[in-house]
Amino acid sequence: MERDFIRSRLLPLATSAAARGLADDAAVWTPPLGRDLVFTHDVLACGVHYLAGDPPGDIAWKLLAVNLSDLAAMGATPAGVLLGLGLSTAEDDVWRAGFTEGLGRALRHFGVALWGGDTVSGLAAAALGLTAVGAVAPDRALGRAGAQPGDDIWVSGTIGDAGLGLAMAQGAAPADTFLLNRFRRPQPRLALGSALAGIATAAMDVSDGLLIDADRLARASSVALPIDVAAIPLSSAAAARGDDLPARVRAATAGDDYELLFTAPPALAAAVAALAAPTRTPLTRIGRVTPGLGVSAWHAGADVTPARLGWEH
Amino acid sequence: MERDFIRSRLLPLATSAAARGLADDAAVWTPPLGRDLVFTHDVLACGVHYLAGDPPGDIAWKLLAVNLSDLAAMGATPAGVLLGLGLSTAEDDVWRAGFTEGLGRALRHFGVALWGGDTVSGLAAAALGLTAVGAVAPDRALGRAGAQPGDDIWVSGTIGDAGLGLAMAQGAAPADTFLLNRFRRPQPRLALGSALAGIATAAMDVSDGLLIDADRLARASSVALPIDVAAIPLSSAAAARGDDLPARVRAATAGDDYELLFTAPPALAAAVAALAAPTRTPLTRIGRVTPGLGVSAWHAGADVTPARLGWEH
Repeated sequence: MERDFIRSRLLPLATSAAARGLADDAAVWTPPLGRDLVFTHDVLACGVHYLAGDPPGDIAWKLLAVNLSDLAAMGATPAGVLLGLGLSTAEDDVWRAGFTEGLGRALRHFGVALWGGDTVSGLAAAALGLTAVGAVAPDRALGRAGAQPGDDIWVSGTIGDAGLGLAMAQGAAPADTFLLNRFRRPQPRLALGSALAGIATAAMDVSDGLLIDADRLARASSVALPIDVAAIPLSSAAAARGDDLPARVRAATAGDDYELLFTAPPALAAAVAALAAPTRTPLTRIGRVTPGLGVSAWHAGADVTPARLGWEH
Repeated sequence: MERDFIRSRLLPLATSAAARGLADDAAVWTPPLGRDLVFTHDVLACGVHYLAGDPPGDIAWKLLAVNLSDLAAMGATPAGVLLGLGLSTAEDDVWRAGFTEGLGRALRHFGVALWGGDTVSGLAAAALGLTAVGAVAPDRALGRAGAQPGDDIWVSGTIGDAGLGLAMAQGAAPADTFLLNRFRRPQPRLALGSALAGIATAAMDVSDGLLIDADRLARASSVALPIDVAAIPLSSAAAARGDDLPARVRAATAGDDYELLFTAPPALAAAVAALAAPTRTPLTRIGRVTPGLGVSAWHAGADVTPARLGWEH
């Protein structure tokens, strides 16, 4: 019965006053004075976004992380979340224990409160929703529109690791812990996103592939984003598995990176670079915004834009 | 493709500035100054909470209404919502058009903004989540704890209509438009809930059955709620189908009423009764809180508490 699951597994995680011991019809939260609030809701479906055999603790981590990555892309600091768990008979007690343990670890890791939500069972397959709420200084929220010709194009961290990790999770390649973790336990760039408010002209997180997401940012800003494929940052683990042009295009279209793609005026390049150390986030310039519309990929002076830019949903 | 569905069907509904044209990773909203915020998230699953053949516009209405009912129970005024639509192949273009038309009608009816969310397809069966955000005066949010011995027990509207409507929707009884609508298009008691802040000692919405929900309120408040079965308000349409003790117990355990159950000191009974006209909500006293723990049902001096109090989830 869901009431027992909520009491035994979710209530211990809902320690904030806002959650009211999960005893009321809704959560109540006093927002910080003089801040804008940022809201996002993402759904992970079994068989679509994760595999039935994936470790449930990692699914919980990813469910939280992909939503926090949306907050990071807006420059917001997370405060609380609501869960919408649609479960099937496949999510038995062992799965539920693993899921809630992983969720608790992730909530503590990111300093986020569980405020409430809903759990229903009897679905044909699990669908896991999460709403994340964060705060940002007034009128400082980042967005996809705002990139200007002449701006530098930046990306955080490394690109393509999660795509290689996915192939490993599917058994298509020998497992590597670093790359598997990049797929299963993404790290939303919260500190960087928060620091970019007031610096970046446009920002978004890379979830469907660097190129397709860059195309979305370009179209939202009505500019062109030519990407220097040779500049795309690869981890040493990824580079060891291929560093040629096809491998780099695969990385740039693989998705699930949860890195931040952003633009900033060249005059602020030193200010951007100075954020790498305090936010512990590698930052790489991968191109410069031009007039035009949409993304393109360039290598040794040639347009190498692939037909498929990433994942379409 | 979900991008086309979002652009053609959901974007026209997302007219508030907070939604940012659904073009960013998250919504941004400036909360009203000096208000607490209230958050709820409920999921409706196909085959569990509604039937595959139900009119999609009514499903959308109900998805919004059940969440707004949670806000009403807390005394909050709704501001915006986020959708988490998990769809299967059964939710084709015709279904989606009906769903979004019904959602638009409901959003306009209740004066609520669509801020954002997520749509995923490829599920085995639909699971529809919605997060509702509202505001309430500081420290005025209602809750289930707080009922005191001696308080009057009140309920809004009429009880049991939706249970009869469900039987009609399932083809188990001849259809009646009023009762079917009470099941398919519940009316959250937002005006009443807002007016009860500062008057009611405890409140919740009746979703699983008057008796089981009264039991929850009683236990959250550590009191007893003896309900006078003869006093439970029935609509004339429901009473015409049975007004004897078994029919009244069925009504009190049927659920899906989305009425408000609340307690208030007898000294405020006139103030409560005076809310009926401005909120256009019938209000009925159905008992008085006593020391003890849990709900009981009484008729002609006899304890008639049924074994099954309502829906357990």
